[in-house]
Amino acid sequence: MTSKKKILLNAFNMNCVGHINHGLWTHPRDRSTEYADLDYWTSLAKTLERGLFDGIFLADIVGVYDIYQGNVDLVLKESIQLPVNDPLMLISAMASVTKNLGFGVTVNLSAEAPYIFARRMSTLDHLTKGRMGWNIVTGYLDSASRALGLSGQDEHDKRYDRADDYLDLCYKLWEGSWEDGAVIKDMAARLYADPAKVHAVHHRGPFYTSDGYHLAEPSKQRTPVLYQAGSSGRGREFAARHAECVFITGSDKATARATSRALRQAAVDVGRRPEDIKIFIGITVIPGKTRAEAEDKFEEYKRDASPEAGLAHFAAGMGIDFSKYDLDEPITYGTSNSIQSITQLAKQKGWTKRQLLGEVEIGGRYPRAVGDANHIADELASWIEEGEIDGFNLTRTVTPESYEDFIDIVIPELQDRGIYKTSYDDGGLRNKLFSEGDRLPARHHGASFRIGAADVPAASEKRITRA
Amino acid sequence: MTSKKKILLNAFNMNCVGHINHGLWTHPRDRSTEYADLDYWTSLAKTLERGLFDGIFLADIVGVYDIYQGNVDLVLKESIQLPVNDPLMLISAMASVTKNLGFGVTVNLSAEAPYIFARRMSTLDHLTKGRMGWNIVTGYLDSASRALGLSGQDEHDKRYDRADDYLDLCYKLWEGSWEDGAVIKDMAARLYADPAKVHAVHHRGPFYTSDGYHLAEPSKQRTPVLYQAGSSGRGREFAARHAECVFITGSDKATARATSRALRQAAVDVGRRPEDIKIFIGITVIPGKTRAEAEDKFEEYKRDASPEAGLAHFAAGMGIDFSKYDLDEPITYGTSNSIQSITQLAKQKGWTKRQLLGEVEIGGRYPRAVGDANHIADELASWIEEGEIDGFNLTRTVTPESYEDFIDIVIPELQDRGIYKTSYDDGGLRNKLFSEGDRLPARHHGASFRIGAADVPAASEKRITRA
Repeated sequence: MTSKKKILLNAFNMNCVGHINHGLWTHPRDRSTEYADLDYWTSLAKTLERGLFDGIFLADIVGVYDIYQGNVDLVLKESIQLPVNDPLMLISAMASVTKNLGFGVTVNLSAEAPYIFARRMSTLDHLTKGRMGWNIVTGYLDSASRALGLSGQDEHDKRYDRADDYLDLCYKLWEGSWEDGAVIKDMAARLYADPAKVHAVHHRGPFYTSDGYHLAEPSKQRTPVLYQAGSSGRGREFAARHAECVFITGSDKATARATSRALRQAAVDVGRRPEDIKIFIGITVIPGKTRAEAEDKFEEYKRDASPEAGLAHFAAGMGIDFSKYDLDEPITYGTSNSIQSITQLAKQKGWTKRQLLGEVEIGGRYPRAVGDANHIADELASWIEEGEIDGFNLTRTVTPESYEDFIDIVIPELQDRGIYKTSYDDGGLRNKLFSEGDRLPARHHGASFRIGAADVPAASEKRITRA
Repeated sequence: MTSKKKILLNAFNMNCVGHINHGLWTHPRDRSTEYADLDYWTSLAKTLERGLFDGIFLADIVGVYDIYQGNVDLVLKESIQLPVNDPLMLISAMASVTKNLGFGVTVNLSAEAPYIFARRMSTLDHLTKGRMGWNIVTGYLDSASRALGLSGQDEHDKRYDRADDYLDLCYKLWEGSWEDGAVIKDMAARLYADPAKVHAVHHRGPFYTSDGYHLAEPSKQRTPVLYQAGSSGRGREFAARHAECVFITGSDKATARATSRALRQAAVDVGRRPEDIKIFIGITVIPGKTRAEAEDKFEEYKRDASPEAGLAHFAAGMGIDFSKYDLDEPITYGTSNSIQSITQLAKQKGWTKRQLLGEVEIGGRYPRAVGDANHIADELASWIEEGEIDGFNLTRTVTPESYEDFIDIVIPELQDRGIYKTSYDDGGLRNKLFSEGDRLPARHHGASFRIGAADVPAASEKRITRA
């Protein structure tokens, strides 16, 4: 008997109060206002590992959502991803109380020098024993560029050109600077590392220049598992080259399927395999022991949710100030440099503010599943099959209640159906996801920067020289 | 009866194998090669808290020591601060197993965008409940500039001009963006933060520009405790304005006293108090239950120490390749843009390579105290009194043995003499050190950036505008 394909599962979260389903911080059982306490995160990590989650996926944003009403008033009142703390600072504490949970963390590369960032990720991959993932984002908020003191953000496609260059430098550091076997740790011979196997990287890219040794010795995975979320044509090209996990927006299964097929084909076009990319959609699940219990819970949550906050969040993504529209006025204006113009979408869907507020009745715009274990399992299985995806980023509603409910109600049903693991696999995060070992496979672009590739200097070239 | 002045104590450490006393990684009881394991650090943090250490001071270096022999061969063989992992990634795990230990962490500001770095430190100050300190360094290695892709590093004094600008922007974010009372967390009123009390920062400095809200809500200390180590004229001016703890190099007590007096006078000159700066020297202590036991241990450690590695480390700081000198040749060459020219020091001390190798017989150049509890206590008390300093950064030799020995042998004697605390004080790190509350005192330069200062926009100015 062949085993069935297992659903991959991340807890979708962020180091802040309001993440996706806004307003629920006001629910009496919600603990998200405790986000600045370490106990909140170590407790959550243990809960997720109890539920055999593959990982916790931590979103991040640099900048603020100042489109809706042209200010941050509602953003502050409802804590819509502001305040927001640094997600990477949470990892070592969560790692210290877990053994298998993965950590996929969003870092905006425009805010970090690659030489420094590469060491930071290596450090975390060491401390987690190979459980790190990086969600690569290039940033889309003008407010971020202003805060960083940049003269303005790059045009959309150029941001991906910059990201390509950034990644290549990171690969050189992660894959090409220290050979396998460079670290000896021979006390008697007084030989910690073999100088013949440690190489200076020399990078002259269109955006980045660097000459130096990677500061960290090789970690279990070397390159962290690479996540990405762009869905534009250039974004897909980037994903095809670099991404191992892609987070797509899928409002319905047919759209997800089309996106999934396009992504896998793009990967195949650059020499990878269709299954080299694991595809996730975000989803909000409200499970109950019975259908009635689930529907009552949904009604209860909606009383504390803030649809207006959900709209303000969406406004920032779209670059449209929805506050200027009457409830039933068609939304026809729209410019966005990161997401397909809303004008076209609005034409297709006949969007009005009233309709959008209805979509975000739980405070967020993700697909929802509300019901008993059987219904939820049917719905998830159907997303996997019809949407041709691999897994889910599970949003939180009332937290940590929503994760606990999912673990206690839904996961046993998924396990009974044979579509969810009953124990963790061995190895680091990459091996758990792909069962091909902890390192990037040889067919991945990043593997071309290993020793022997043209860009990496010979072992004898030990001295860094100025260009 | 007035209580005696208490000695302040940091464990001096680094996220790497060889830190100060090089070569001891080869000692059979040394655990420093486990630096990439979280357990090593959480165990150490608990040990230090058992010993009532004020903090762990984590050094860092961006770049490599490539002066000695013109390469990094010995650096790799003896792991002389290479490999070196990111120290900030250790904090949340250590914080999760301690309640009082402070964390002073070195971050080179030339490698970090201030807007991002300010959030990172706020995040850690939240997660540690106010136990963070930042050791401000501007970097001195050419290898770091090359690795970061900079066209070359700033001339020495300009580096401090840049640091002044960087700090001012950080103060605006930490002290001036969110007023006290801005965070309401009123669920019934749906008011997480009061928009009238959250302000965009507008910074137009000679080096940095930023327009934006601080992404983090105020942490316990807001500004972390500020550490600094520069000893040049311009460095002292910088310390007088910003530093709360200064780490000085003191080869003898008279030199320490002169430096201490000059620093405190410089602080007074800018409106602060002499006691507003706590002054630390680095010291290596090898204690035994008896004098003979201590001396035997010293001899034992020396057998595994590497004086040549100590010399290679010193070479990088001085910018002099000592490998080119004969053992008894006077060292007369020297240029260093960060440390007083060695030529003058060599003339005073008659330095030769043989003499330097003798100084680093334990692998490092710090002052040493070897003996029983009584002798060590005498020596430390005399540094405090004659050197007019406040405390010590205690280097490790064989680790964690050297910290455990200090705790078990020396600290009871210091406590018996009334010159070491018998319990932690309340509050965050700043309050523990200064007993004046968790925030910067009003007379500190950083306090001038609080709401009401000219640079901070009025509460009504909510919209970020481009300059």
